[in-house]
Amino acid sequence: MPNVQGYEAKHFVVTSPTENVLRVEINRPEKLNAFFEPMWLELGSLMNKVSHDPDYRAVVITAAGERAFTAGLDVEAASQGGALGVSKDVDPARKATQVRRHIDEFQACISAVEKCEKPVIVAMHGISIGLAIDLSSCADVRFCSKDTRFSVKEVDIGIAADIGTLTRLPKIVGSFSWVKEVALSARWFDAEEALRVGFVSQVFDNKAKTVEAAIEYATLLASKSPIAVQGTKELLNHARDNTVADSLRYTAIWNMSMIQCKDTQDALMAGLKKKKPTFSKL
Amino acid sequence: MPNVQGYEAKHFVVTSPTENVLRVEINRPEKLNAFFEPMWLELGSLMNKVSHDPDYRAVVITAAGERAFTAGLDVEAASQGGALGVSKDVDPARKATQVRRHIDEFQACISAVEKCEKPVIVAMHGISIGLAIDLSSCADVRFCSKDTRFSVKEVDIGIAADIGTLTRLPKIVGSFSWVKEVALSARWFDAEEALRVGFVSQVFDNKAKTVEAAIEYATLLASKSPIAVQGTKELLNHARDNTVADSLRYTAIWNMSMIQCKDTQDALMAGLKKKKPTFSKL
Amino acid sequence: MPNVQGYEAKHFVVTSPTENVLRVEINRPEKLNAFFEPMWLELGSLMNKVSHDPDYRAVVITAAGERAFTAGLDVEAASQGGALGVSKDVDPARKATQVRRHIDEFQACISAVEKCEKPVIVAMHGISIGLAIDLSSCADVRFCSKDTRFSVKEVDIGIAADIGTLTRLPKIVGSFSWVKEVALSARWFDAEEALRVGFVSQVFDNKAKTVEAAIEYATLLASKSPIAVQGTKELLNHARDNTVADSLRYTAIWNMSMIQCKDTQDALMAGLKKKKPTFSKL
Amino acid sequence: MPNVQGYEAKHFVVTSPTENVLRVEINRPEKLNAFFEPMWLELGSLMNKVSHDPDYRAVVITAAGERAFTAGLDVEAASQGGALGVSKDVDPARKATQVRRHIDEFQACISAVEKCEKPVIVAMHGISIGLAIDLSSCADVRFCSKDTRFSVKEVDIGIAADIGTLTRLPKIVGSFSWVKEVALSARWFDAEEALRVGFVSQVFDNKAKTVEAAIEYATLLASKSPIAVQGTKELLNHARDNTVADSLRYTAIWNMSMIQCKDTQDALMAGLKKKKPTFSKL
Amino acid sequence: MPNVQGYEAKHFVVTSPTENVLRVEINRPEKLNAFFEPMWLELGSLMNKVSHDPDYRAVVITAAGERAFTAGLDVEAASQGGALGVSKDVDPARKATQVRRHIDEFQACISAVEKCEKPVIVAMHGISIGLAIDLSSCADVRFCSKDTRFSVKEVDIGIAADIGTLTRLPKIVGSFSWVKEVALSARWFDAEEALRVGFVSQVFDNKAKTVEAAIEYATLLASKSPIAVQGTKELLNHARDNTVADSLRYTAIWNMSMIQCKDTQDALMAGLKKKKPTFSKL
Amino acid sequence: MPNVQGYEAKHFVVTSPTENVLRVEINRPEKLNAFFEPMWLELGSLMNKVSHDPDYRAVVITAAGERAFTAGLDVEAASQGGALGVSKDVDPARKATQVRRHIDEFQACISAVEKCEKPVIVAMHGISIGLAIDLSSCADVRFCSKDTRFSVKEVDIGIAADIGTLTRLPKIVGSFSWVKEVALSARWFDAEEALRVGFVSQVFDNKAKTVEAAIEYATLLASKSPIAVQGTKELLNHARDNTVADSLRYTAIWNMSMIQCKDTQDALMAGLKKKKPTFSKL
Repeated sequence: MPNVQGYEAKHFVVTSPTENVLRVEINRPEKLNAFFEPMWLELGSLMNKVSHDPDYRAVVITAAGERAFTAGLDVEAASQGGALGVSKDVDPARKATQVRRHIDEFQACISAVEKCEKPVIVAMHGISIGLAIDLSSCADVRFCSKDTRFSVKEVDIGIAADIGTLTRLPKIVGSFSWVKEVALSARWFDAEEALRVGFVSQVFDNKAKTVEAAIEYATLLASKSPIAVQGTKELLNHARDNTVADSLRYTAIWNMSMIQCKDTQDALMAGLKKKKPTFSKL
Repeated sequence: MPNVQGYEAKHFVVTSPTENVLRVEINRPEKLNAFFEPMWLELGSLMNKVSHDPDYRAVVITAAGERAFTAGLDVEAASQGGALGVSKDVDPARKATQVRRHIDEFQACISAVEKCEKPVIVAMHGISIGLAIDLSSCADVRFCSKDTRFSVKEVDIGIAADIGTLTRLPKIVGSFSWVKEVALSARWFDAEEALRVGFVSQVFDNKAKTVEAAIEYATLLASKSPIAVQGTKELLNHARDNTVADSLRYTAIWNMSMIQCKDTQDALMAGLKKKKPTFSKL
Repeated sequence: MPNVQGYEAKHFVVTSPTENVLRVEINRPEKLNAFFEPMWLELGSLMNKVSHDPDYRAVVITAAGERAFTAGLDVEAASQGGALGVSKDVDPARKATQVRRHIDEFQACISAVEKCEKPVIVAMHGISIGLAIDLSSCADVRFCSKDTRFSVKEVDIGIAADIGTLTRLPKIVGSFSWVKEVALSARWFDAEEALRVGFVSQVFDNKAKTVEAAIEYATLLASKSPIAVQGTKELLNHARDNTVADSLRYTAIWNMSMIQCKDTQDALMAGLKKKKPTFSKL
Repeated sequence: MPNVQGYEAKHFVVTSPTENVLRVEINRPEKLNAFFEPMWLELGSLMNKVSHDPDYRAVVITAAGERAFTAGLDVEAASQGGALGVSKDVDPARKATQVRRHIDEFQACISAVEKCEKPVIVAMHGISIGLAIDLSSCADVRFCSKDTRFSVKEVDIGIAADIGTLTRLPKIVGSFSWVKEVALSARWFDAEEALRVGFVSQVFDNKAKTVEAAIEYATLLASKSPIAVQGTKELLNHARDNTVADSLRYTAIWNMSMIQCKDTQDALMAGLKKKKPTFSKL
Repeated sequence: MPNVQGYEAKHFVVTSPTENVLRVEINRPEKLNAFFEPMWLELGSLMNKVSHDPDYRAVVITAAGERAFTAGLDVEAASQGGALGVSKDVDPARKATQVRRHIDEFQACISAVEKCEKPVIVAMHGISIGLAIDLSSCADVRFCSKDTRFSVKEVDIGIAADIGTLTRLPKIVGSFSWVKEVALSARWFDAEEALRVGFVSQVFDNKAKTVEAAIEYATLLASKSPIAVQGTKELLNHARDNTVADSLRYTAIWNMSMIQCKDTQDALMAGLKKKKPTFSKL
Repeated sequence: MPNVQGYEAKHFVVTSPTENVLRVEINRPEKLNAFFEPMWLELGSLMNKVSHDPDYRAVVITAAGERAFTAGLDVEAASQGGALGVSKDVDPARKATQVRRHIDEFQACISAVEKCEKPVIVAMHGISIGLAIDLSSCADVRFCSKDTRFSVKEVDIGIAADIGTLTRLPKIVGSFSWVKEVALSARWFDAEEALRVGFVSQVFDNKAKTVEAAIEYATLLASKSPIAVQGTKELLNHARDNTVADSLRYTAIWNMSMIQCKDTQDALMAGLKKKKPTFSKL
């Protein structure tokens, strides 16, 4: 199945299952969808593109195969020059500089999921460890299937997770005690526990149903005013990182132009006529 | 029933059900308690007044009628000159300035619930959408009845909520995935779900029992040291918006005077004498 | 039982139940483990010492006796010159200065639990009120037994809690409504409720099993790369107090040196050989 | 001379010396323009009003008489119930609460000068101490006459300045060593020194010339696009209190509507026609 | 003169005047070096490239021709589709979205000067207005010739400067009164005034001598330890945007790896041998 | 000359030249007062002690000998195990941990000058490089003699200054261009330049006069209300690191107790009686 135009990619299948919805599927099932450098560069590009593309109003991220959403970093590939591959003959300060530039780029690619102006829903299943947590923590809404098995796995390979898990996880679930318990120990947790602590919003019976629900939810979002939906994403993310006073002000500044859209009128009119409203591109 | 002295209001019934407790009831049941501009101006004034009024030590906000806590903004009234009513013949920049000043004022009135130095408990029931979320998010403690139906409804009329919901909701419930799911889609959620995610603290069988429990809880707070209760509110709100280091310092500075109250002694003495302590006004 | 070398203490029993694990037991059971000034000074010293001591990689805090983890501040002792004991013959400004210096020192001792570079697990049981909340909120992971009874008790003695509860509690559980409800009213809550709101991660049948589980969990952490475990603690704490952008950057700067450890190689090699890895001291 | 319509005031003479410019003159020369409570309440009201009044685009603050811009707080009046006037028969905690509410209100009135959306120029002369520094630090641009004598005087009456001097002064002059030197010692400094350290922008020969220059400068600002001028004030104040990254973002959000004004076109067109542009009200 | 390899550009002459120094010359003298979109995109690319290029350790930005460093934005080009060129047939909210994306990109290109890991010295002369201030405010060190004429010109075309001037200027000169005076009025200021207020560090007789001095200074920096020089840039920029406590911590984390360079030893050894030290690439 | 009681020290001469003033003299003139580890530990202790010692109300830091205030870090001593002395046989991550702990402690000792609740005046002369800048940047007021020669010297030994210079210097002088120019190049600057950019407040003819002036100024501060003077220091430091809104609030909270001192009354009374006021200890 060829990718939709403009979204050519080697490691991702990109399709448009419903109107204005883009589905990005991680496609390396033979390696449990483990990531190596070209993959995250590609993911970053795809997310940056859809961010400003008026043809899409919601994004769903899924993964190919039944076994894993992603097993995280492909450590083998990384050790050959990727994540950990820095010059051998330089002093630790220069090595640190190389590492930092590498992490900066890696983080930027994954953060592109969060920075994407369109809402992103992630549908997880099976093994979802390491980078799976970093990546899904950038999505707006997390759905998963019953069989999903999660772990903040990095401690077990001797590093503190550095692509976003430790930064975002405390801000997306309520119990700091739980976050620390699982992150310090790298212990597994399942879908039910993920739902209980608020890491995912909903759990479905299997992968197929999870993906279906994610697409359905994305389709719902895509049917609503893109001014309203994208503004809601922006303002919720702003709130996470700012004081109430600063966010209230930012909200007013944001909406002083956004409220001048035609969408409110279109929505109210459609309501009166009992018709589905249509909204201009954004 | 006339309002208690000093709290005259057209759209709110203000009473004092128990000693030192003020009850503010939204009173426009024939319109599902929907708000228009004079209402939020009035609410702001009432909250500012009770904030410094030594006669009251806790506030309960309820709403008249069985059907709704509030259906949010009265869109009809707003479209006639309120929330969206700006000059027609000016350029978008000047229109934006008018909108901003309007939002600033609206936000300030609702934020008065949060800024009120006395603890505010809100008792919700029935339809509780749009502004209902903005307003109740400013309260300290949220109770609701089983029949309450919530929705962050703004997306459905083409706007990103701008009176506080998007700013405060991520800071008062634990699951960011859930917050985004309901805010992006405007989907309904019920009392049970609100309790599970932590939006409300307790759920009661019906409106009457919810109001009763809220008043009982407020009465309990009003019986305790106002220095301790009001300080607790202040310091918890400070913590939400500041680092741990900054809040610890602020706490020390706050308490270096507050600890010089007579209340500790009064409380300990009453404890020894097995009597209910009484505390001076604040 | 004598304390382990270097950790002599009058009010704490300090042992090493398993390799690289330090157990610190509050030992004033005859007074329900209530704290007075020498105790928190001692606790601060112990935590500061273990923070840099390469012999220990995880800490467990427990309390002696069956009745209480701690009943909080020993008000009687405090009123004789401790927490509230300031000069009587000075003006309120000078009194405030004395109080502030006292609170600063008290906060610093308790915060030493959070600042400790090694992960700290607290195992609670029985009466756990007042300072029990301040102290345990500084720990990384909280376990408790079924019989634990919690209360943010300070309001009942006329003060707003000032040793950290009001600062940290809103950041370690998800429901701000619940936090305010219990903190404003000083009402009791039990282990089940503490688990539901995320204050504790796990609940066990009784004190013995709670302590056992905490030691087991600490032992697990101590068996992992100390570079990874301590880095995870540091980065999670940083995330709590900073924006996502700032924490991602801090993470990169932290890891640009930490990733140069031998631990990743040791962990991978042990994995290949199906052996338990061993890691150098830190 | 009666005040301009809508700006009636007892302690200020309010005139409009040139088109779209409002002059507010402190008018209590017989007391060296010392402030007491009704004065700052009045000043706050005047500034709040002009902030949204489309008839004025710049404000000049001056003071009557030759001797003083203002000698600061009228200590005598204050000691009779104003700044320091709190109930005598309450404990220090309750007294502190009264003091805090008083300071909050006092600060809000003076901060209204900074919050005013229109640029404010202050023209100082003669004795300018205590509150003179708090107030002028809120203005956007400070001019003074050669004879001006400044002092952060509060230390000499036993208090740390609390109406804004200590908060704003470090942010409006470059040398922190100088700020501390004059604030800790309450020593006098003159116009030349004020210019050298950057507290004032320009010094003029006498009061008359200072006022004339301030009005001329305000008239220049009032002739320019109010969208551009008021936006510049807003964004400069935002920059002072935020990181570069946050302010760049805020700037983009602000300007995404503001750039949609007609003023750019009007300015360019007037430039081509070599005419003075005129801009719509704001 | 062809550009140095890897730095091909249409609007900039890129040379390496001395070892490890890169000179980037704005090259559109026939239009007073006014910028249009392709120019800032190109500048951003050049700065991003040199940021990680180990062959260069310092950058000098100059401008071709005698008349102007840059006259800022090429308003004519911009009005044809650049800075202000947004769709005509969309509502103000969608127009605002287009404007925001445009400003974001523009800001990112200019901010690349600040983000560049190598120190950047700017040598200014002649007309230096509008974007000249935005751009030079991103440089680390500003030199200028006597004949430089500066203006924060944006107000005169009806907009508040939005590419960084209003954000950075208050943080790079000491007098906020002066910043506001020149930014609100768009008045001209000369080299002497720029030196007095601290906007530039040094003034030279003419353009040639300014460029020469900038290259000489850059050459000096390039001769020193790149670990030390680049770390100093990073830490000074961090300090500008953070509290002292946070920056001290960041400094420690940064240096815990950087201090492990060979450069200290090399520098000390060279000192002992009275030779010029050489340092490895970075 | 023996040190004053309670301030015994090996590397500092501690005297009380005037009432309530403490003078701390760096005393290693034979090594140009260069610092090694025991010295900064001792300095930290001295400053922590005087911070709460009611017998002293102002501190002056001077240095012995005519040649140098301090030549900074004693690199020779450091290389034998101090600043740079970490284990040789550990991996770069573990080495980094040791370095970080060392920097943390070093920073804490120097920051004790800033944290000291009493105002600290530093009187500099001769060679004042490296740590001289870190240390004096922590003082409140900087005086120097004409012969002082300054340099942010660290770049020349291959490190970015990490004990505070890069953190505080941008916040205590106005020109960021100048700060970067001298910090990136390690170039020398003299007393006149230090005065012009605002690094020092005043310059005196020679060391003796500088010290005399510093003591005289400290004596002046010591004669004023310690509540007012110490509050002024606290609030100015708070302002440096916080937004205006946050600092205004902190100021109100601070002063709600401090204003309850007797000092205002004492000052006013003494003014009426034309006598010198005396104030209680703090």
